[in-house]
Formats: sequence, structure tokens, C-alpha cells
Amino acid sequence: MSHNTFGHLFRVTSWGESHGPAIGGVVDGCPPGLPLTEADIQPFLDRRRPGQSKFVTQRQEPDEVRILSGTFEGVTTGTPISLIIENKDQRSRDYGEIAESFRPGHADLTYHLKYGVRDYRGGGRSSARETAVRVAAGAVARRVLGAGVTIRGALVAMGGDAVDRAGWDWAAVDENPFFCPDRAAAARWEERLLTLRKAGSSVGAVVEVVAEGLPPGLGAPLYGKLDAEIAAALMSINAVKGVEIGDGFASAALTGEENADEMRMAPDGTVDFLANHAGGILGGISTSQPIVARFAVKPTSSILVPRRTVDRSGAERELVTKGRHDPCVGIRAVPVGEAMMACALADALLRHRAQVPDGPMSTRLPRN
Amino acid sequence: MSHNTFGHLFRVTSWGESHGPAIGGVVDGCPPGLPLTEADIQPFLDRRRPGQSKFVTQRQEPDEVRILSGTFEGVTTGTPISLIIENKDQRSRDYGEIAESFRPGHADLTYHLKYGVRDYRGGGRSSARETAVRVAAGAVARRVLGAGVTIRGALVAMGGDAVDRAGWDWAAVDENPFFCPDRAAAARWEERLLTLRKAGSSVGAVVEVVAEGLPPGLGAPLYGKLDAEIAAALMSINAVKGVEIGDGFASAALTGEENADEMRMAPDGTVDFLANHAGGILGGISTSQPIVARFAVKPTSSILVPRRTVDRSGAERELVTKGRHDPCVGIRAVPVGEAMMACALADALLRHRAQVPDGPMSTRLPRN
Amino acid sequence: MSHNTFGHLFRVTSWGESHGPAIGGVVDGCPPGLPLTEADIQPFLDRRRPGQSKFVTQRQEPDEVRILSGTFEGVTTGTPISLIIENKDQRSRDYGEIAESFRPGHADLTYHLKYGVRDYRGGGRSSARETAVRVAAGAVARRVLGAGVTIRGALVAMGGDAVDRAGWDWAAVDENPFFCPDRAAAARWEERLLTLRKAGSSVGAVVEVVAEGLPPGLGAPLYGKLDAEIAAALMSINAVKGVEIGDGFASAALTGEENADEMRMAPDGTVDFLANHAGGILGGISTSQPIVARFAVKPTSSILVPRRTVDRSGAERELVTKGRHDPCVGIRAVPVGEAMMACALADALLRHRAQVPDGPMSTRLPRN
Amino acid sequence: MSHNTFGHLFRVTSWGESHGPAIGGVVDGCPPGLPLTEADIQPFLDRRRPGQSKFVTQRQEPDEVRILSGTFEGVTTGTPISLIIENKDQRSRDYGEIAESFRPGHADLTYHLKYGVRDYRGGGRSSARETAVRVAAGAVARRVLGAGVTIRGALVAMGGDAVDRAGWDWAAVDENPFFCPDRAAAARWEERLLTLRKAGSSVGAVVEVVAEGLPPGLGAPLYGKLDAEIAAALMSINAVKGVEIGDGFASAALTGEENADEMRMAPDGTVDFLANHAGGILGGISTSQPIVARFAVKPTSSILVPRRTVDRSGAERELVTKGRHDPCVGIRAVPVGEAMMACALADALLRHRAQVPDGPMSTRLPRN
Repeated sequence: MSHNTFGHLFRVTSWGESHGPAIGGVVDGCPPGLPLTEADIQPFLDRRRPGQSKFVTQRQEPDEVRILSGTFEGVTTGTPISLIIENKDQRSRDYGEIAESFRPGHADLTYHLKYGVRDYRGGGRSSARETAVRVAAGAVARRVLGAGVTIRGALVAMGGDAVDRAGWDWAAVDENPFFCPDRAAAARWEERLLTLRKAGSSVGAVVEVVAEGLPPGLGAPLYGKLDAEIAAALMSINAVKGVEIGDGFASAALTGEENADEMRMAPDGTVDFLANHAGGILGGISTSQPIVARFAVKPTSSILVPRRTVDRSGAERELVTKGRHDPCVGIRAVPVGEAMMACALADALLRHRAQVPDGPMSTRLPRN
Repeated sequence: MSHNTFGHLFRVTSWGESHGPAIGGVVDGCPPGLPLTEADIQPFLDRRRPGQSKFVTQRQEPDEVRILSGTFEGVTTGTPISLIIENKDQRSRDYGEIAESFRPGHADLTYHLKYGVRDYRGGGRSSARETAVRVAAGAVARRVLGAGVTIRGALVAMGGDAVDRAGWDWAAVDENPFFCPDRAAAARWEERLLTLRKAGSSVGAVVEVVAEGLPPGLGAPLYGKLDAEIAAALMSINAVKGVEIGDGFASAALTGEENADEMRMAPDGTVDFLANHAGGILGGISTSQPIVARFAVKPTSSILVPRRTVDRSGAERELVTKGRHDPCVGIRAVPVGEAMMACALADALLRHRAQVPDGPMSTRLPRN
Repeated sequence: MSHNTFGHLFRVTSWGESHGPAIGGVVDGCPPGLPLTEADIQPFLDRRRPGQSKFVTQRQEPDEVRILSGTFEGVTTGTPISLIIENKDQRSRDYGEIAESFRPGHADLTYHLKYGVRDYRGGGRSSARETAVRVAAGAVARRVLGAGVTIRGALVAMGGDAVDRAGWDWAAVDENPFFCPDRAAAARWEERLLTLRKAGSSVGAVVEVVAEGLPPGLGAPLYGKLDAEIAAALMSINAVKGVEIGDGFASAALTGEENADEMRMAPDGTVDFLANHAGGILGGISTSQPIVARFAVKPTSSILVPRRTVDRSGAERELVTKGRHDPCVGIRAVPVGEAMMACALADALLRHRAQVPDGPMSTRLPRN
Repeated sequence: MSHNTFGHLFRVTSWGESHGPAIGGVVDGCPPGLPLTEADIQPFLDRRRPGQSKFVTQRQEPDEVRILSGTFEGVTTGTPISLIIENKDQRSRDYGEIAESFRPGHADLTYHLKYGVRDYRGGGRSSARETAVRVAAGAVARRVLGAGVTIRGALVAMGGDAVDRAGWDWAAVDENPFFCPDRAAAARWEERLLTLRKAGSSVGAVVEVVAEGLPPGLGAPLYGKLDAEIAAALMSINAVKGVEIGDGFASAALTGEENADEMRMAPDGTVDFLANHAGGILGGISTSQPIVARFAVKPTSSILVPRRTVDRSGAERELVTKGRHDPCVGIRAVPVGEAMMACALADALLRHRAQVPDGPMSTRLPRN
């Protein structure tokens, strides 16, 4: 069983290989009547687009999205939205080595074993190129969530060097090539990444995504809990090896009294929290506090440092992965993480509406 | 939308509240012809059962499972397996306070806001009591995986105090009340937990689950990747705030050459790895190496230390959560984590068979 | 893959065998806040209950339903509703013949071939006994649809002898043992069925189910069209071999001008139809006219007339099916058909809400 | 909730409107290693293609399919297969009338009410143009089923005039523009359809689809029964109002002894049936006999005969539907019915493999 659809009610079906004619996706379940044109999607693709700095792959892809269905006169109609992005820069090259050998850290061996056949060109289906489709779908999901919901991501650590949260500035994120909210860290990272790139090496990173402005009540316990859905969404991104919500792994070191987010009444009659260790989710359901998720991205596996491996015939080899690569794939994972968060939340919103159509828009008490 | 079914082909539908007459589940999609009686399930329930040491809740539940359908003469028939566990020790008490107030860190507020009504007795649906159903389903999943697959869990950190991996001994896990693989750590934890319990406090923990003996090829990319499925499975457990695979968050601090698991040929013609930073999964597909997952469990929210909160009428209160609780819910999460891993893997195995019925049983090369 | 769940958002998972300890189901996705107790379900079970006339099986089952979860103080909580019905009259008998031989027209051979093992007692999982669970779930579905929606079924033909639609009286349906809306036909059928029963034979029937009071807009095109969902729901009932909506097969003999349901404006500003050939569904979406569906039920396969068959060892045999059976299973299919219609409509209602929360409640124009 | 995906494991997601730039679909779950190029799909599209005789719409569409992903060097890779067909002949015309008025028998009113907005050009999403995608997907499904499985369709009645089954000749089906297996009937229909077309009228039809060569065991009871899946598949086709399996509605007039398909042993040790009233399915599971399904197609609703209707402003009108239409949409429904049958069977095959990987390939006894 293949499984290229994400979501239950807001459903994204993705298709395409790195070096095929195009990649794309179908967004099904989008409510009707939402304004949507290519211009609403393109800016998000542009943020993720390769070739924009020396710290990401030099593949030149315009990543222009076209909407082939599901809108009429600039408005969604409730029918499936087909999105397509042509592949332009499938560099003509000799794929002999990558066709024969299994690159360590990559999906080459597992695809070969599972399917017995694979499109090895540029990683085929397992290439991070597919994440462009996620970003496009995420732009549609933002429409579903509405203008009151803000979803922002940032790189919070690179190679073990974390940002200083005291110096966090969302405005800084768009000023450096790392989506880094801490200008001092960005300066350090730039230097380090130049060195790593020269050495043909790569490095891992941690991304944080924050969603604000959501109503309480999102999440479908027990097996569609909002945190479980977000975890699956983020873990499905290429190279991700860990996901946490709120305090995450740090909460394992806390006591109960430290961890419990105390509550009081705000002057406007809503419930207010004194802390957000929970990252905006209790019992798998959103509290209306900001939803905070982080995910760990392993270092790019395509490196110029020779590594031991085997080939299809069963011979041992040393392999150097040439080609155009990101020295830190975590960077471009930032807009992808935002998009997956947006999709998971749009889906949760539709699911909530289905069961509780008159669900709460705030934490105002009493409801009954 | 409610969502109480886990899995795609091996599907577990769970039901029941903490203080209702019973809890239970339906396992659908189990292959026919597998030996299965209550005796195959009960030992796993017994490991999770409350009241067995002073470090877990003193609720006395025999947790005796009955199979109501889906087997005939001790063998599965391919029809749905209904499992039921009666609730025996629903202590008669005054629920006034918990009915009216929202316990910090609990799902009280979010259930109240989402549904407008809730069974507050013992936490109702959001109680960890439901995890008994998961454990029972996990025992069925183990049958599907077969005797060649081993799934074991252990507590690897409590309140920030981690085990020494050099002293890891699986045999130790069943010798202490913490499922701790390091005897020295178990001794330290015992002392600490006694202190915490006396103080009416609680503490978080980290659980590790390892699955061995799996064939390569399990996992349904891109949105049913094995790691994404495991992440959702583990994150759906009560109180879990983070999940990682292999090196997880630590991989974000590595370089590409450190992280890449190099390969060589084993004498038997299979591919062998020199390391397992990936935790047994590449590109969302199992490699045949051990699958290693860890999850962070926050400290029990039910504590005797007073916390500020609000009640249904919108009044502010100080709340102390009386009753029988686990000072470290992470302990009993060990068998639950194993069970969820077993369910996710059984599901992945069935999905793999559907698409690639002659899929590989080992990493022997060449396949084609 | 087994598949014992019906519905997408209003989901019924059924379990149980004819001669096991119990049968039951789990209804997930039910909105919270609906009044629901056993007393709301029992009357529907009583209508389907065996042993009530000489024209149905004499098995004596009280069919008392218990709600084990999902309600609190008589109201649904939005969590899964577990329903259980104990099997009481599993007559102790020799199953030797049915264990060994494959009854023609029954699922004996196909279950044997598919699963390699089967619970043959009373037909096991393939027994019509399971339809009690459907009826119980249907009662919950009616709650979701609300009091404004009426779903009624009737037997409209037995053994080729159809009712006279001019003499249709819904009140008559509950006055005879056939759910027949035409008193004259009921009298004819009684005579005929007595003769058939004496001869150890059986006969087929056609059931009609009509749903009134629904808003327009239900149905999820293109692959969740309301008529396709209803077709699957009704075709899943034991012994059903055909389903039609509105004029159904008769529409194949009409011209376009005969078939088109013309429209006009009603005095209250809603769209009114001059006919209902479409059976209340256009383009897979409800029009707000009555939804009319019919399904054909084949004659009971358990008969006393000897039939040629084979046994497990591959020997040919003549078989007479003893035991307690319905001479016309179509009779008891009436409440089952109503229940499946109710479930399909409740599911469609929740799905519609998810995508179009402010969808129309009538055909009032203009909407925009 | 929109729902444009068909199938559980062999999943077809369709998108596109009649007058948009293109239509297409994504086939997910296809096993790897199957030969597949455009040349395998195109012949099936050519059979359904408009403009080929005077009895179908004169819209000129080459219907050339392109595969954008999921194959490599002419072989499926197990990743999603994206299929695209450009719309070429979106005749430039004034859509004023159809934009404003609701055509009787069409989905205009229901889409308008449900979504509040619709692409009215050529019927938009509800146009039969979408069925080209189904046909393309059906060609992929045939690859999954393999060369041993034959799926053929025929028109068996038009406007109440049925074929003579004694004169059935599959070879005739491709010799006349009606897919009619009875040459005498084809001659009668030609005359009649010419008259109807001249009168601006239309007529309904019945299509039969037969699948041969399948193993026993396909079907996932109780809610994924093979007949229920086929019913949903066929009922989802535009203009279909009824579906039956085997004897279908006629079985309601039979006695049990007439209807029961008796069994004997064939010389090769397999179980043989003496009749096929069941249409190849018992208990929702295939028997290995030919699977026989029929579906009723209502007459084309687009006719030149004036009909009463209303418009968006709530005014009453008389409407004549100009444009290019099929006088009998049932004709082109034949290849569509075959395709939906192929998809349903491919899905059932994968589902069966998942649960019973060593399932039977014939009715040979004994299995155990």
C-alpha cells in the first residue's frame, strides 16, 4: 500500500518525482467560496524555492504553480483543486553511480528493497523536491484557517548551536537566509555553514513552528489527537527524526507543579493560562493558546566526504555524492513545516465542525 | 469528528470511560488462522495493571480481558475481534470538585469546551485507563508480527536522570518496578520517587521502545511513512509530548558524515550497517535494523501541590487533585508504548503485503 | 483486509458472530449533547426481533441492548458509543453437517476459501443476526438527524407480487407481520407464505425506504455521492442483490422529457418539484425531495428442499438446511434497510457540515 | 466534505471540470513492477471518446492521456501515477442561460445550493467529461488484475427494448456504435435513436458488465463486501439510478430452490456451480464464477424539448438545453462501467492480499 494522501477531511494527495516532467497535488475537501488564485500560493513557494542563497541547493527552479481545477472566477468551488509545478532544471547528467549504489542516509536502499524498482534520478519520489507540493497545499490550508490564524516557523538550532530566545525577533526571520529569529545566531551560522560547505559536509537543525489565533476544541481524540496529527505531519517531512509539542522532551525533566499550566480568568471573561508548557494542546485538543511544535532535521546525507556503501550487485564501494545539495536541509524545511502545520490545522478545523458545528470560538465560560 | 480508530488495515477501535461499566476495543483486519486466546493477551495487561507497586496508582483492577468475537476454537477467523475489560474499582466518591473545576494539565477544560458535556468521573474518556485497551490490542498485533519479531520497552530517564547505556540489561527491566534497564538508575529512581510521592508531587520520564526482527520494506511513503505512523501512535498516548526515532533530536547536532549509517556486505549476502543513527528507518521505510523510538512523558498532572485554576462558573480557585494517581505516569507508559509500536508495525506489515505481496524478507541482494 | 466499519464521519464498527457470547458495535463520531438511552434504541430492535410471528425465524432472542460508553447522564458526550446485545438462544445442536458442507446460496464456501477457517455455528459472522447491530446504530443515527427527519420502510413486493401503490397506507405497515403498506397485498402474502413454509421453501422480496425532511446539499461528489453511499449501505445487507434510487431501473425505459423533474417556485420562496423521478438526489446531492430507495432481497437460502452441494473433503452431497429460518428474509430486512439509510444520511449530514458549515436548510432562493 | 477518491488500497483521486484547462487523476497504491505506458491506457479512452458516431456528443476531444509520474522506464514504481488529459474543445459560447437557470434532471440546482458557487460551463465538475479519468484509471486497474482477468461491458437495453440473450455475441459489441451484443437489437436501436435525436429527445439504457477469471475470496465483509463496493462504484457514474448483481431484482421473484446455485466437483478437483444466480458473489465474497453486474442509466437530461424550471433569482422559466449532447448517455457509460468494475476489483484484490496473503487462486478443495 502506497499512501500519498495527507489529512482526513482537508486532503492533500501529492504526486511526482524529482526529475519527471512535473510535480503536483490535489487538494480535496476545501470549503467553497474562498478567494484563491496562483498569487495566493506563489509567495509561499518562493520562500522555499531553491537557488536563492549559497546555503541551499543551486538547482534553478522557478516553481511556478498553476491551478488546474477547483476554482472559478478566483473563488474555490468545493471541488478538488489540482496544483501543478513543472520541473525545469532536471540537469542532464550521468546517473550511473547513483543508479547503481545506495547512498548512506538516503532512501535508495529501502526503495530498492521495497519496490524492486525505483526512479533514481535526483532521488525520484524520495527527493525533497516533493515538499514544494506541501508548501502549495499549505497556502490553500491557510485560506481555510482564515486571516485570524498566523502560522510562522523559524530555525532555532543549527548543528547544536541554538538561538537565544531572549533575542527572538520574528522580523529577523526574513532578513537572513536561515529563517533565524536571532540575528547574532544567524551571523554565527553563516560563518559555520561556509566552512562546512567548503569541507563538503553538512549539518542538522531544529525548526520551530508556532500557530496563533486558533479557537479551542480542535483535535479528535483519542487517535486523531491534534498533537498526534501534527507529529505525523512533521515526521513525514524528509530528514525529520523527532517532533515535540510545547516543552516536549524537556517536560520529562519537570515536576508536576512546574509543568501544570495554571489558569485564571481574563478580564474579558475568557480562561487565561499563566504558562504554556503544554504547547497549546491538552488531551489532544487545542486550548486556544499558541500551538508550539519543534522538529529535528538530520544533516543532509548528500556529502562530498567519502562513505562506505554497497551497490546493487552486492559489491562494497566508497561513495561521494556529487550534485547540487543543501548543506543544511533544515533551512528549507522551515516553510515546509509551516505548511504541514497549516494542513494539519485546517483538517482539524473541518473535523471539529463536522462533529460540533456550533463549537466554541474562544475560551469564554460558561458554555452551558 | 471523533476518531477512536487506530491503523489502516490492522485497525483498533477503542471505547470506554474510566468509570463506566467497561472499556474495550474491536480489532479489525487481523489475518485468519492465528492462535489467539485470552491467555495470549492477559500477560501484557498484567504488566500494565495498576496497584502492583507503591509507585503506581493504587486503583485495584484485575483487568481481565474477554474475547467476545473473531476467534473460533482458539484461532482467529479474520472477522473483527471484540475485546472487553470490565471496570471493577470505580471508587464511590464525591466528584463535586472535579466536576466543577478544570484540573491544570488535564483535558478537563478542553473536553468541556469542545463537547459542552463530559463524563468527569476519573477523567472519563481522557483517563489513562483506556490504555489497557491499547495493550490488549498490542498483544493481538504481536501475533500478526509473528514470533520472529521482538518489541521491548524500557524507561530510560526519569525527571532528567537518564540510564547509563553502558549498563543496559534487558533482563533488569522486569526486576524493578520502573521497567528500568540500568540497576543503578533504578535504585536512584526509587529513592527519588519516594520523596516525590511524599511531597504529593510527580515527575516526567522518557521511554524507549525497540523492535527487532522486522523485514525491510515496511512503511508507506510519503504520508504513511513508518516513522510518521510510529510518531502518531506514540504521541496519541496520554501525557506524551515528544517522539523521536533513532538519534532523534541529537541528530540535529551532527554532521552528515557522522550521521550517515555506512553499509557493507555481511558474509551471508545481506546488507549490513555499521551504525544505526537512523533508528532502522530511511525514507520512511524500514531497513531491517532495529527500530528505535523514544517518547517523552510529562509529569502526572494530578498532584497534591495546590495549583491555580478556574471552574465552570468562571470563578478562580486553588485546586489539589486528590485520588489515586501515578507519581510518574511514564512507568506504566512502557507497556503501552510497546503495544502502540506493535500495532503500528502490524499495520505496516499488512499494508506492505497489499502492495508488494512478494516483498523482501531480508536485505539480501540483488533482488532484481 | 477485513472491513467492519460503515461510514466516514458517523462510523459504525460492528462485531460478533451468530452463536458467540454477544454481538455489538461501536458508534464513533456522534455529536455530543444528544439525548440517548437504551430506551431510544430498544423499540427499533423490537421491530426487527426474531420470533414475533410465524413468518420469521423462531429463534428467541430478547435483543436487549446495553450502552457501555459514550453517554453520561442520558446524553451523548462525543466519545465512542459502545453497544452490546447478548446472544441468548444459541440452540445446542449438532453442527456436524453445516460444519462440513457448503450450503448453496450461503457464504459457507466463500468464507471457507477466503479465510481457511470459519465459525460455522449458525452462519457465524455471515449470519443475519449481525443486522441487529445495524438497527441499534440506526437508532443513534436518527438522533443525529433529528426529529424533523422521518425514515420509513415497507415491503413492496414478495415473490413477484407487488403492492398496489394506490392503496399505500403507512399506517398499515405496523398492522401486519410483513411491513406491508397495502392491506390487500398483505392478505395475499400471508396465504402464500404459509404454503411456502409448509413446502420448506422460501421467497424473495423488494423493500422500499423513504426519507423525508432532509435539507438539500447532502452528498459528497464524486465518489461519496449520496446515492452511491446509500447503494453501498443497502447492498451490504445480507441477501441483497439490487438497489435503485427513485425510478431506478424503470428510468432506463423513459425519455428525457418524461424523466426530468420540472421545477417551479412555491409560494414560500422555495424551489418546488413537479415530480420525483430522481428519488430526491441529483448529481449525488440531495434535492430536499423525499429520498426513495428500493432494494431486492433474494429468497432465504436455508430451505428444506434438498439441493446438490459439496463438502470440505470434496465429496458431492445432497443437503437440506434444518434449523430456524425466515421463509422470507426480506421481511426483517425492512427495519435493517431503514437503519442503514439512517446511518448513511447521518454520515452525509456530518460530512456536509464539515465542508459547508453554513449550508442551506431549505431550497429557498437566492442563496447568493 | 468533498470526496473525490475512489478505493481503499487502489485509490483513484480525480479532479477537473468540463471546461477547465484539463482533467486528470492520481492513482495511488498501484503495485510496482507492472508495465505501463500511455499506450496501455489510450485504447480504453478511445472507446469512450466523444464525437465518434452520430449517436454521441459531437464535442471533439482527442482525449490524449499523459503519465506525469509513477512510472520509470515503462514500469510502475509503486509511487503515485499522475494522469492528465487536456481539454481541447471548450467551445466558446454564451453560458448566460445555463449560468442563470437550473436545468431539470441536472446537478445545477443541487451544486448551487450545496456550494453557493459553481463552475456552470458545460456542467463543470458534474459533467460526464470526468468519466474519462475513470476510464484511464480503469486501464491501470486492469494491469493490477493481470491478463487472466477479462472485464467486458455491453448495452443490454435501450429505452425498454432489451437484447435477446440467445443472440448474445461479444464480438458484435465492437461492431456497432452502441456496444450492443445483439445485432438485431442494434439495428432497431439505430432507427429509434435517429428518431429521438431528431425530436431533441433522449432515452435511458441498461449496461451489463461481466468480469471473468477472478480468484475466489475477493471482498471484505461486512462493510466492504464486493457487491457493495461494486454498487457504490457503478452508482457513482453520472446518471446511474440502479445497480444489481447476478439476478438482481429478478431474484426477488424467485423461490429459494430456484435461486440457490448448486455445486458439484469438477474433474480438476475444483468446486463447480450449476448456475450463477448470485452473479459470482456470496456473502460479499467472490466465488470465482463470473461477476455479473447491471446498472440503469437514466435518459440524458439535456434535451431540446422545453421544460419548466426556475433561475437563480427565483423566477420561473421554460428551458431548452442547447449544446452538444449524447441522446443516450448509456452508450458511453459502457466503457466507464467496465473501468469502475476494474477499479473495484483491483482494490478488492489488494485488500484481500493484505489480510490473506496466501489466499486461494482457485476453488480447489480441501484448503485445510
